[in-house]
Amino acid sequence: MEKNIDKVNLAEKFGQFSDHWNPRIVGELNGQQVKIAKFLGPFEWHHHEHEDEFFLVIKGEFEMHLRDKVVTLKPGECMVVPRGVEHRPVASQEAEVLMFEPASTVNTGNLQGSERTRKDLERL
Amino acid sequence: MEKNIDKVNLAEKFGQFSDHWNPRIVGELNGQQVKIAKFLGPFEWHHHEHEDEFFLVIKGEFEMHLRDKVVTLKPGECMVVPRGVEHRPVASQEAEVLMFEPASTVNTGNLQGSERTRKDLERL
Repeated sequence: MEKNIDKVNLAEKFGQFSDHWNPRIVGELNGQQVKIAKFLGPFEWHHHEHEDEFFLVIKGEFEMHLRDKVVTLKPGECMVVPRGVEHRPVASQEAEVLMFEPASTVNTGNLQGSERTRKDLERL
Repeated sequence: MEKNIDKVNLAEKFGQFSDHWNPRIVGELNGQQVKIAKFLGPFEWHHHEHEDEFFLVIKGEFEMHLRDKVVTLKPGECMVVPRGVEHRPVASQEAEVLMFEPASTVNTGNLQGSERTRKDLERL
């Protein structure tokens, strides 16, 4: 079992893709997943009915728009967006972001029919 | 509700304490906690019966000793230690580490009576 236990170098994983708003899975634990994605431009307003989401900026920066304020996240900064809270990430420059959320979480939340919806995520 | 949603600057939180092997909680989501701790020196061999643990190095580096190998983790590198797997973190220099794990996780796992066991963790 321990054979498969190894580290993940995030920079190396980010180097394996270049598209935006398309999360990859880099770890799984306790029914949760560790995902990474590149953000660029505005995403869509959405919320998650049953899942809280954690975001940590690894490189670059982005703004998390909430209905009543905007939180700017830079490298080494993180936040939790609780379930039910409408949010919209906006990146004026490319941002590399690590996310931690339940395996059931779909990136566009309540907007499952969006052209940006991603399911069956790639594992890096 | 959204009033309490804000970012966490990890460097600022790490600046608020100086002791080692004493995790602080910096976020909670989906029954899981985001914790940060400073590692220095060898910790104890232990395992967690029911919890997988995620470690991400923010600063410094440490070795995760497993029974059959040693994994060295540097900034931007992370790993999951699955439940049941014996492990022992060892930091020859101070490391600042972010962890994701279930709220039920006790730092010393099966060694609940260790002098290093920490419960009722501080929230930063």
